[in-house]
Amino acid sequence: MREETIQLDHGSGGRAMHALVERVFARAFANDFLQELNDSAILPPASGRLAMTTDSYVVDPIVFPGGDIGSLAVHGTVNDLAVSGARPLYLTAGFVLEEGLPMAVLDRIVSSMAEAAREASVLIVAGDTKVVPRGKADKIFINTAGIGVVRDDVRLGGGNARPGDVVLINGTIGDHGMAVLCRREGIAMESEILSDSASLNHLIEAMLGAFPGIHVLRDPTRGGVATTLNEIACQSGVGIRLHEEALPVREDVAGVCELLGLDPLYVANEGKVLAVVPAESADVVLEAMRRSPRGRDACRIGEVVAEEPGRVFLRTRIGGHRLLDMLRGEQLPRIC
Amino acid sequence: MREETIQLDHGSGGRAMHALVERVFARAFANDFLQELNDSAILPPASGRLAMTTDSYVVDPIVFPGGDIGSLAVHGTVNDLAVSGARPLYLTAGFVLEEGLPMAVLDRIVSSMAEAAREASVLIVAGDTKVVPRGKADKIFINTAGIGVVRDDVRLGGGNARPGDVVLINGTIGDHGMAVLCRREGIAMESEILSDSASLNHLIEAMLGAFPGIHVLRDPTRGGVATTLNEIACQSGVGIRLHEEALPVREDVAGVCELLGLDPLYVANEGKVLAVVPAESADVVLEAMRRSPRGRDACRIGEVVAEEPGRVFLRTRIGGHRLLDMLRGEQLPRIC
Ligand SMILES: Nc1ncnc2c1ncn2[C@@H]1O[C@H](COP(=O)(O)OP(=O)(O)OP(=O)(O)O)[C@@H](O)[C@H]1O
Ligand SMILES: Nc1ncnc2c1ncn2[C@@H]1O[C@H](COP(=O)(O)OP(=O)(O)OP(=O)(O)O)[C@@H](O)[C@H]1O
Ligand SMILES: [Mg+2]
Ligand SMILES: [Mg+2]
Ligand SMILES: [Mg+2]
Ligand SMILES: [Mg+2]
Ligand SMILES: [Mg+2]
Ligand SMILES: [Mg+2]
Repeated sequence: MREETIQLDHGSGGRAMHALVERVFARAFANDFLQELNDSAILPPASGRLAMTTDSYVVDPIVFPGGDIGSLAVHGTVNDLAVSGARPLYLTAGFVLEEGLPMAVLDRIVSSMAEAAREASVLIVAGDTKVVPRGKADKIFINTAGIGVVRDDVRLGGGNARPGDVVLINGTIGDHGMAVLCRREGIAMESEILSDSASLNHLIEAMLGAFPGIHVLRDPTRGGVATTLNEIACQSGVGIRLHEEALPVREDVAGVCELLGLDPLYVANEGKVLAVVPAESADVVLEAMRRSPRGRDACRIGEVVAEEPGRVFLRTRIGGHRLLDMLRGEQLPRIC
Repeated sequence: MREETIQLDHGSGGRAMHALVERVFARAFANDFLQELNDSAILPPASGRLAMTTDSYVVDPIVFPGGDIGSLAVHGTVNDLAVSGARPLYLTAGFVLEEGLPMAVLDRIVSSMAEAAREASVLIVAGDTKVVPRGKADKIFINTAGIGVVRDDVRLGGGNARPGDVVLINGTIGDHGMAVLCRREGIAMESEILSDSASLNHLIEAMLGAFPGIHVLRDPTRGGVATTLNEIACQSGVGIRLHEEALPVREDVAGVCELLGLDPLYVANEGKVLAVVPAESADVVLEAMRRSPRGRDACRIGEVVAEEPGRVFLRTRIGGHRLLDMLRGEQLPRIC
């Protein structure tokens, strides 16, 4: 009979763990590299520069409107590779499970990871399974690491923004953070806010295909758009000016944010990309974005300036200027 | 003034996190790839097949005789690459920190990782930092993933053991598991048992240099030597016979194991490698092992047989045969 919850011996390295790996993980992630179940996956030679990244995921709740910790763990790592100009190829997945986690929950999360990996055309080639006693972790934490091959023709980096460049985004901001928060706090809405959690590699391929000379790409995850633009402003030694009336925010997201005293500019996204591009190429990049399913609502939100290097400003609707510092304090813990 | 413990905002993605990453992690791991602090590290092209692996580390206690969770997280992943015939090159490090973790403890663990990485000649090129509220994780969990380039001339794999091959090991068994257990349970010994936690890539390079045709290499971590040999016996469809009198076990390890009803053959190692080699090459490999600092006590412990495919047997001192199944149940939770 099938056990119904995760037990300590599922992390023992012995028979129960091997059975779990074969029955749950290897079956869902099914590919020739993982299937060998050796100490490392052996992968074919890759030509070109490599990109390598990692993120751990501790989101609470583990299932939220629009996604779950499994799909999120694939999207987030795929996106960190994609915004680096890489074609994401291979992921690893490390699981820390809490004793007592229902097997049905694990199954769901693993299927969702497998589905997200298929959608992004990446393979999960190696994994690890640890189990800690009840109360020593919270249900499930997942780490993914990823590698990809960097396009030869791109030179992306947070330090490449130049005065005169414009700032583009592929859609509304704050959706992921507010979807997770509303579910966690039991805030009921007329129509539920959905996370934007999604892989952006196909969108980004289209953008770089349209104009390989994009200066910066970055996914505004924890800390939101304001914090990510602060990173870019610092790394590039430039100022960045946003236009309040140009910022795409869903009405319901704006509503809940106001209610809770949050600013959508500081709320995490998991399916958004910021692009800093030379002004003369902005339209060609925007058009490419809008032709892609994840970029339909793409728009211009601001520009890079020489003044106030290292700082980000918001030009408000009434024409004022507000400094947008990096996020201070912990606005929303365990959001990804 | 320097904060004394980890706070939720160290995982916010905002200012506090950036300061922590720069002051603690990037400073200790110091290398040009990490230093860019972009979404992914961009690495030079690597020629040849790639090996890729991951492990999460949840060991309790986080500091134990002979090591800590930081050095362990480097050794373990380096070893999974090395036993795959790869030269380990780059690691990622994902941290899940519990709110309240003393900064001094984090500093110590991070220095220890940095030192282990230097010793193994690998670079930690990307990382991630999440913080969960008090009680939602236990102090610190670390995931490392790693990539390396596989030697052209090797064809290693758990499925390559052949009848007639001999089984070698580079030293005593059960040290890591018993070191962690004794510290955790407060078992006092005359002289403390030290973990064998160590990177084996230099040893393994010497072994493959002496004889590239080694059939199988594997590190007997969780589940111990008996479980790892069961994996090999299954994957290769062969039997494996061990000789009790040939098994190297420290006297104090044997003593505590007997006291607690444990079998050192099932206790985790973190600085040991099992090698399955054609009989005629055993001596040349053994000699290479013994010339290397991590292989001084290398010896032959058994052989591969055609009978009883998929099973491992122990030939006891008095000439009997005992079946050594894979580990069943959880002998020692949170050992790595
Ligand atoms: N959750 C998982 N998803 C996918 N593959 C997994 C998972 N857990 C383990 N594996 C795979 O199963 C095989 C055995 O994993 P295991 O963790 O036992 O190996 P190891 O890292 O060599 O041992 P240890 O973790 O004790 O150091 C590996 O090929 C690994 O990639
Ligand atoms: N513990 C750490 N050790 C080493 N480097 C780290 C660590 N934490 C973060 N970094 C590095 O700092 C930079 C920023 O990390 P961060 O996690 O904010 O990026 P991200 O993954 O793009 O964002 P998010 O985690 O919100 O998705 C990256 O270059 C990352 O490699
Ligand atoms: Mg291993
Ligand atoms: Mg990320
Ligand atoms: Mg493992
Ligand atoms: Mg990112
Ligand atoms: Mg391992
Ligand atoms: Mg990160």
